Amino acid sequence: MSGLRAIRALPPEMRAGRIDHASVISIVGMVTAMLGLAMLIPAVADLQAGNPDWQVFMAGAFVTGLIGGLSWLTTRKAAARLEVREAFMLTTLTWVVLAGFGSLPFYFSSLNLSFASAFFEAMSGLTTTGATTIVGLEDAPPGILLWRAILQWLGGVGIIVIALAVLPGLRVGGMQLLQTESSDRSEKILPRVSAMAGSILMIYGTLSLACLIAYWLAGMGLFEALVHALTTLATGGFSTRDASIGGFHNVMIEWVAIIFMFASSLPFLAYMGFLKGGARALGDDPQIRLFALVALVAAAIQTIYLVAGGIVGGADAVRLSLFNTATILSTTGYAAVDYAQWGPFYNAVIFLMMFIGGCAGSSAGGLKILRLGILVGVLRQHLSRIIRPHGIFTVRFGRRRVPDDVAVSVCGFFFLYVATFAAVAILLDISGLDGVTALSAAVTATANVGPGLGPVIGPAGTFASFTDLQKWICSAAMLLGRLELLTVLVLFIPRFWR
Amino acid sequence: MSGLRAIRALPPEMRAGRIDHASVISIVGMVTAMLGLAMLIPAVADLQAGNPDWQVFMAGAFVTGLIGGLSWLTTRKAAARLEVREAFMLTTLTWVVLAGFGSLPFYFSSLNLSFASAFFEAMSGLTTTGATTIVGLEDAPPGILLWRAILQWLGGVGIIVIALAVLPGLRVGGMQLLQTESSDRSEKILPRVSAMAGSILMIYGTLSLACLIAYWLAGMGLFEALVHALTTLATGGFSTRDASIGGFHNVMIEWVAIIFMFASSLPFLAYMGFLKGGARALGDDPQIRLFALVALVAAAIQTIYLVAGGIVGGADAVRLSLFNTATILSTTGYAAVDYAQWGPFYNAVIFLMMFIGGCAGSSAGGLKILRLGILVGVLRQHLSRIIRPHGIFTVRFGRRRVPDDVAVSVCGFFFLYVATFAAVAILLDISGLDGVTALSAAVTATANVGPGLGPVIGPAGTFASFTDLQKWICSAAMLLGRLELLTVLVLFIPRFWR
Repeated sequence: MSGLRAIRALPPEMRAGRIDHASVISIVGMVTAMLGLAMLIPAVADLQAGNPDWQVFMAGAFVTGLIGGLSWLTTRKAAARLEVREAFMLTTLTWVVLAGFGSLPFYFSSLNLSFASAFFEAMSGLTTTGATTIVGLEDAPPGILLWRAILQWLGGVGIIVIALAVLPGLRVGGMQLLQTESSDRSEKILPRVSAMAGSILMIYGTLSLACLIAYWLAGMGLFEALVHALTTLATGGFSTRDASIGGFHNVMIEWVAIIFMFASSLPFLAYMGFLKGGARALGDDPQIRLFALVALVAAAIQTIYLVAGGIVGGADAVRLSLFNTATILSTTGYAAVDYAQWGPFYNAVIFLMMFIGGCAGSSAGGLKILRLGILVGVLRQHLSRIIRPHGIFTVRFGRRRVPDDVAVSVCGFFFLYVATFAAVAILLDISGLDGVTALSAAVTATANVGPGLGPVIGPAGTFASFTDLQKWICSAAMLLGRLELLTVLVLFIPRFWR
Repeated sequence: MSGLRAIRALPPEMRAGRIDHASVISIVGMVTAMLGLAMLIPAVADLQAGNPDWQVFMAGAFVTGLIGGLSWLTTRKAAARLEVREAFMLTTLTWVVLAGFGSLPFYFSSLNLSFASAFFEAMSGLTTTGATTIVGLEDAPPGILLWRAILQWLGGVGIIVIALAVLPGLRVGGMQLLQTESSDRSEKILPRVSAMAGSILMIYGTLSLACLIAYWLAGMGLFEALVHALTTLATGGFSTRDASIGGFHNVMIEWVAIIFMFASSLPFLAYMGFLKGGARALGDDPQIRLFALVALVAAAIQTIYLVAGGIVGGADAVRLSLFNTATILSTTGYAAVDYAQWGPFYNAVIFLMMFIGGCAGSSAGGLKILRLGILVGVLRQHLSRIIRPHGIFTVRFGRRRVPDDVAVSVCGFFFLYVATFAAVAILLDISGLDGVTALSAAVTATANVGPGLGPVIGPAGTFASFTDLQKWICSAAMLLGRLELLTVLVLFIPRFWR
């Protein structure tokens, strides 16, 4: 069978290196304590609204803050060591632990959710997926609605920091291409995080504020504008209404959502370049150019189909096609309309867009435009080599040459991505779901989109009818997808721990 | 966007080279004339059975032989030039032209098929897919049954010769790994074909004869044993009964089919090594070892599922699991039982096996074990690099190191394979098929298996109810899959013709 062998031995200091568990626990503890602090916000909202759930949030804040704070303070050291393996542990552990604590308010609230549902909801929030198990959002207390939005907002900014400051050093699935010129080797992860987190947070915060104001001007109330701004920037998609954005019946609000969903799925490195070097940084980014192409082609196909088929008239067809392209490619998952009714072709287009996703280096999920571009480049290289066996061809993305090892990484990732879908779809299939629901649940969870296809989990449905087992499977798929599969899977390789 | 550039210019003699159309037409004409000769066999069978269709076969033989012979003789040259681009044209053109002439007997016979159905049947034969549009095989004239089997047998040996003697030189999707030590560069295709065709035909013929005798000893009549031997070795799967092998209700026949279906999906290079160097050549082949592993694991999972679920009892469960593993992995497509009834899990396993297929260098279709092994190797290399950034890891298949450019070729092929499924499934979906039928028809056609999933095209169904458009789509998919996608697709690249 196929095998691997390390040709060059590892340097001795690496072989002897033990994982620094204390540093990992320390940082996870710190982040957990911050999550506890964040629970005070919905507590205030519920207290103001006179909802008794404020006690749940207060108790949650206390427990989360206490456990997080104690873990942090008891393991804190003068100099935390954060090398490759610590970074892997830290990333996965953070999402799992935060989902665990984040689920407490859902579990103990007046919603009467099972623990599987509560954990699913928290994981769907932190992974910015947006799939929900809560029916009747219009009657849900404001604290819960705000907490879901906060989880997404935090998960969104968290994954951008991870994607730009941690994953390039870990060289996961081609993410090393997101390395900035000044960024260092993998050994120095913490300095990179602190160097980048500030400007990421500033851009993310500014866009969130702009989005809030735009929703408000378009006609939303201030509370709903806040919730939707938080979940739009996160490309998360949790809403305050069962019918999602469609529940507002407001064309302006839909246009605001379209603009900010697209804006949220652009690579944040380009925004940082924009701040330094002006608008050219946006237009020159090869991911943005390919993303624009994919989005325009997809929206045009949908518009033609809707108009030619007499399903929706002209102006509505353009807006709804752009909305659905934005919500699915950005993996936000808002719904403006129940496209489940629009026939198999339209739903096949939606399915393909789920698979592709947004740009790497944003909060969007899916395969990512960066990888799509490299895969197309690999295929073109192969075709060119076939036609001209004596030519030498390189894979390029934009002006940049893609080294062979990066191209192979992306290919390995793609194989794993397809295999993960198949595995999750089969597990959901065995557990008793019908084919379309199982397949689209696997894709929507792994790509962190939100809604699936079909009557159960389509844009008009929820995951409430799933069994606990099915919710756990989807929670695992959301985690895997959010952390680029490999970040989680390496932890299950025995060699990792040696 | 991603782009490619030829860094080294082409040698001038290659740039100036024009495609030698005459040589291509000459060889296609010769092969067509041989197909015309082959039509005399079913003519004799129908004449003996007193069936008036013998005239159809005679007329077909005359027309096919005449057109083929004239094309051959008028373009024949002292020295045919067959370089890379001629080989691509030749391969695709041969399958399309032979399917066209091969469909004549179906179209003009007493079966009353549309031309789309007749062409589908011929393409399904030549590509050794085995999907059929004919209902009521028990009442079909012997000439037609024999003609279907002959098309598959010729298509089977044809693809083995192409895979071993032509594709390695064309470096399509990693097939260069099948290059034998003594084989030359791509420029000398014809000498390689004539060097290898003899021993391939001998092995193929000997196994066919052994299979015929085994079926006959197991209880088949001589005619049915002949038909099934021809379609077993081709991993084609056309049968003489609507219920396929299951129609015989004979356990011994099922075991014979299991053994010869597995034998037919092993790489013929290993058989050639076996003739030279003994049994070790078979056991040492990394494809055979991985194939055995995949088959055993798949059969064990099915057996456990069938027994644990109380669906089928012990001995039957083992035999039927092995049968279904053999028929799907080898992409033969015989049916011993209607597994459509065995629940979504069992059908998901079938679906995955369709996707994988048999060994490269046999008549089996699908992704192929060779590529599966390399993809797993690429993924392992990526994981190893992530865990040990300072190590250097190579992809290996068996003892052989897989060069980076081959690994990238295989990855490009995989991306194209998945994209082709998606495109074909969406086309079939738009054309009005339900989801399961569209998806499984796309896979079964592209992987050259035969039956799909669900009530329409499952093991108990046929493709007869498909519209003409759906049959044309499937015919194209069968051709694409059989010729490793790229062999056909390069013809659509403008640069190919310059």
